[in-house]
Amino acid sequence: MLDHLWHLIVGSPLPTQSLSRERLNKIRALAAFSPDALSSIAYANQEIYLGLALAGSAGLAFLWPIGLAITGLLLIVALSYFQTIHGYPSGGGSYVVARENLGTIPGLIAAAALIVDYILTAAVSLTAGVAALASAFPVLWAYKVELAIVLLIVITVVNLRGLQESGTVMAIPVYLFLGVFLSMLGVGVIHLMVGGVRYVPQATLPVLQPITPFLVLHTFATGCTALTGIEAISNGVPAFRPPEARNAGKTLIIMAGLMGTLFLGSIGLTQFLAVIPRADETILSALAHWIFGNTPLYFLVQISTLLILAVAANTSFAGFPRLAAILAKDGFLPHQLAGLGDRLVYSNGILTLAAITGLLIILFNGNTHALIPLFAVGAFLAFTLSQIGMVNHWQRTRGRHWKIKAFLNGLGGLTTGITMVIVGVSKFVEGAWIVPIAIALMTLGFLRIRDHYQDVAQELSLSELLELPALTPPHPRIVIPISGIHKGIVNAITFARAISTEITAVYVELEPGSGEQIQQKWTTLWPNVPLVVLPSPYRSLVGPLLDFLDQTDREHNDGQLAVVMLPEFVPARWWHFFLHNQSAWLIKTALLYRRRRMGFQRVIIDVPYHLRR
Amino acid sequence: MLDHLWHLIVGSPLPTQSLSRERLNKIRALAAFSPDALSSIAYANQEIYLGLALAGSAGLAFLWPIGLAITGLLLIVALSYFQTIHGYPSGGGSYVVARENLGTIPGLIAAAALIVDYILTAAVSLTAGVAALASAFPVLWAYKVELAIVLLIVITVVNLRGLQESGTVMAIPVYLFLGVFLSMLGVGVIHLMVGGVRYVPQATLPVLQPITPFLVLHTFATGCTALTGIEAISNGVPAFRPPEARNAGKTLIIMAGLMGTLFLGSIGLTQFLAVIPRADETILSALAHWIFGNTPLYFLVQISTLLILAVAANTSFAGFPRLAAILAKDGFLPHQLAGLGDRLVYSNGILTLAAITGLLIILFNGNTHALIPLFAVGAFLAFTLSQIGMVNHWQRTRGRHWKIKAFLNGLGGLTTGITMVIVGVSKFVEGAWIVPIAIALMTLGFLRIRDHYQDVAQELSLSELLELPALTPPHPRIVIPISGIHKGIVNAITFARAISTEITAVYVELEPGSGEQIQQKWTTLWPNVPLVVLPSPYRSLVGPLLDFLDQTDREHNDGQLAVVMLPEFVPARWWHFFLHNQSAWLIKTALLYRRRRMGFQRVIIDVPYHLRR
Repeated sequence: MLDHLWHLIVGSPLPTQSLSRERLNKIRALAAFSPDALSSIAYANQEIYLGLALAGSAGLAFLWPIGLAITGLLLIVALSYFQTIHGYPSGGGSYVVARENLGTIPGLIAAAALIVDYILTAAVSLTAGVAALASAFPVLWAYKVELAIVLLIVITVVNLRGLQESGTVMAIPVYLFLGVFLSMLGVGVIHLMVGGVRYVPQATLPVLQPITPFLVLHTFATGCTALTGIEAISNGVPAFRPPEARNAGKTLIIMAGLMGTLFLGSIGLTQFLAVIPRADETILSALAHWIFGNTPLYFLVQISTLLILAVAANTSFAGFPRLAAILAKDGFLPHQLAGLGDRLVYSNGILTLAAITGLLIILFNGNTHALIPLFAVGAFLAFTLSQIGMVNHWQRTRGRHWKIKAFLNGLGGLTTGITMVIVGVSKFVEGAWIVPIAIALMTLGFLRIRDHYQDVAQELSLSELLELPALTPPHPRIVIPISGIHKGIVNAITFARAISTEITAVYVELEPGSGEQIQQKWTTLWPNVPLVVLPSPYRSLVGPLLDFLDQTDREHNDGQLAVVMLPEFVPARWWHFFLHNQSAWLIKTALLYRRRRMGFQRVIIDVPYHLRR
Repeated sequence: MLDHLWHLIVGSPLPTQSLSRERLNKIRALAAFSPDALSSIAYANQEIYLGLALAGSAGLAFLWPIGLAITGLLLIVALSYFQTIHGYPSGGGSYVVARENLGTIPGLIAAAALIVDYILTAAVSLTAGVAALASAFPVLWAYKVELAIVLLIVITVVNLRGLQESGTVMAIPVYLFLGVFLSMLGVGVIHLMVGGVRYVPQATLPVLQPITPFLVLHTFATGCTALTGIEAISNGVPAFRPPEARNAGKTLIIMAGLMGTLFLGSIGLTQFLAVIPRADETILSALAHWIFGNTPLYFLVQISTLLILAVAANTSFAGFPRLAAILAKDGFLPHQLAGLGDRLVYSNGILTLAAITGLLIILFNGNTHALIPLFAVGAFLAFTLSQIGMVNHWQRTRGRHWKIKAFLNGLGGLTTGITMVIVGVSKFVEGAWIVPIAIALMTLGFLRIRDHYQDVAQELSLSELLELPALTPPHPRIVIPISGIHKGIVNAITFARAISTEITAVYVELEPGSGEQIQQKWTTLWPNVPLVVLPSPYRSLVGPLLDFLDQTDREHNDGQLAVVMLPEFVPARWWHFFLHNQSAWLIKTALLYRRRRMGFQRVIIDVPYHLRR
């Protein structure tokens, strides 16, 4: 029933050979790799506005300069990744580049940073998407956590089903968003040309802080979230049609151009049209309101923002499970993350990401602004490691123009490194301190997991085992705990006698005096099988039994543990399960617990008895 | 480690023989049985005030009449239970009385009603206790759910440890409460005599509803919660010193007198001193404020209210597990509820009550007023069934003055029955409808559980088994799923060969082509044991394995199921558990699931391999 339900939700299993390797043309590739990058303006603009508005209308005059600075950074990072694409046509994720060029530990740090980045992309995109929707329909603010979780569930299910259709279906929100936003910016520029630059009157906003260099740097740091997602194409070069690297490079340039246009356009119009949001709307919503008024076009802007943010969250669901699978295959994460599920997707990775993202959304109460400080540090750490790795790559390979290439990547690494420090320091107390700790712990975790797998592989190897061990004595010692004399134990005793002659039944006397009666009945039924009655002054079933097992092992002193055979009821209906004392379950749990504590476990034989009613 | 923690919290196990049967004198018995009854005024007064205040100051004129009516009811119910004590000196809980005199079904209905009553006593007492505290320290209102849960946890732990000291320790809050409240009422009466009767000015309270008969009845119904707990002594007669019934009867009369004094005194003073509470305090707190001002005495009143309410919640923790154990011994509830735990208390019953009470507190957001509609119906149903049972009892036994006794109990039954109908009807839409449904479902559940136990006892009986079955063939068919060729499977194969010659190893080929290599290695190591390689186009481990098991059973067609032997890793550290694919666990779960669906289960043999690192 459970697996029927599962297949109803995620679809029927797919055979391994239907794994397709379809290549993407540039139009579909742009749609597949850009949503995260393009949609970043939804939260980056909001953060920049919130940061500067603290200093009142004077602060808002810094919108445009900060926008220009971030666009400059975007240019440098885009150039760096253009290089990466040509250096790693087989797909140069930060993990791969850092690991190959800088060593295992930097590679793992980059991987941990990427994992943080993927999780936060999902969480931030979902909450920002809900904010776009609630700006249009303020009654929805009260349900922001619920809405974000519903979106998360939809995306999780879609990904568990597998996205055969991804290219085409995903393209719709992306090109809708581009069309709607570019039109809006166009109309805004016409307004600007007709009406001239406007200023926010001084009294409009309360001045909560003076303008300080720290305030400006802090705002710059939060605005750097506009760059997140730019690395996506460099991870996915093999998905392009040949010549892969050239096509991917061109697509990156187009994407970076679009990112710059959207970001600079929207931030510039916000300043020069003197846009001020209502209390319950985002700055992008206020801009759309300014330009389109309360028309259907305004609602189209908000809906398309929500859609592209949902698709952006979806990119984490493509990237995270794939990265986790690579790490798992390299032995740094549990093997289970490397296995393709029923539907040819990494189901365990998808479910892990969904669980962590959901937890973050609930913990941060669906609040994008609270999540942002955690966001940029991970992304910029991955950028930096990847760029430094590329410098090393060019030095080693020394192709044509290698010095220029190394310089460009070095510039990228330096700039993103400085930005990372700015982001980390300026947002340290707001939560950024969690990220380095999380990354360090993850890196250590990766290493310990690998050590464990190596230990086990060595320990299990048969190469040192020169000859197979002799058979155990033909009659293993079997101990059968019984709860009384009834049909339920007959199967077990019959089976035990079929495989051994050294059998002891054990009855734990929970009620004083009950043992004698049992002993008498027993002797008439199985005169050849000894029954031991154990007293239990503390009314514990498992305590006396475990003591007895240890004692018999010591008495026999042959290094062999007694085998425990458990007669177990199989109830006819599920709820009957709760009506029996579950002795078998208790004993198994106790044996499992002992295995934790003592480091050994006995052979357990479960012999079922099927209740008919 | 887990059981060390457990014993740290609840104390070391106690041997069975330390069960003591200490008898209580009247002073300690009053303390042991009265907290629930005495503390009822904390919420009853509040409900009466809230009900009447809806009709403004004119409504408050009904405080005293309603108080008198409820006190009259109290008198009748007390007389009825006085009779029960003498009719059932061995302890006449409603379940016992109703079952013996009216039959099994009425007995079970009474038991279900009592269970509802116990749970709600715990929940209401805790939330009302927190309300008393928060009235004194309003900052605590924001944490009312958390505080109630903390109190619940403390009471649960104390009860799990076992209350050897109950009589003495419990007496302190009870006599503190009595002393403080009786003094307060005395001072209040002096105020009244000096200052005369006061009236609430008409404009003080908004009139939200007119005074209607329904409003008055409805308020009377909620106020009847003042009577809850009065039956406690009749359940506990054997705990008194001899002559048990006489001492218990005297204690009941004293308790009823105190209940009446406290209830009538506080409700009367509330009306005649014209007490009006602040928005964030209870009516009892307002009365204490009026009489004592903001003095330490006021805080003492609130603290003693909190303490007696906590002790009242505790009486549910004594009563519910005992009732559940009686029902379990009669076969109407799972056997597990009948077993004395480590500390000679019914731990499972205590934990069950704690879980349900906690759930109620959280669901109702720690709000006493919202819980009250559920409360009185269960209590009055149990009262009524018990009184009607007593009428039947006197008719059957026909002792001295039996007609008078039967009349008194009949009067009690009639009055409580009418009250139950009033409570149920007037509070139906506010939640009282849940209670009859819950009671009906519980009663049906009791009956189904008993039927199941009877079926099983009959099915398992060895009396019809004339001869024991023949031995299974000496060589059971054993199937060993393997995940690869390594040391981990050596133990299993050695053990299998010790007990059988019909062994088949099975390798499920998750990656196409991997089987061939395994097959070659296998043949060199265990040439005598056949290895079957199963293809798995959908990458499922358990699907092909289960199909193979079914198929071999069909092929052999000897009615015997193949035994599944599982080589299982025992990791050296707990977290290593997550690093392995848990094939053994997956297979066991699948076999368990099949046992649910198909109604059969195979014999499972777990053979451990202990990882050293």
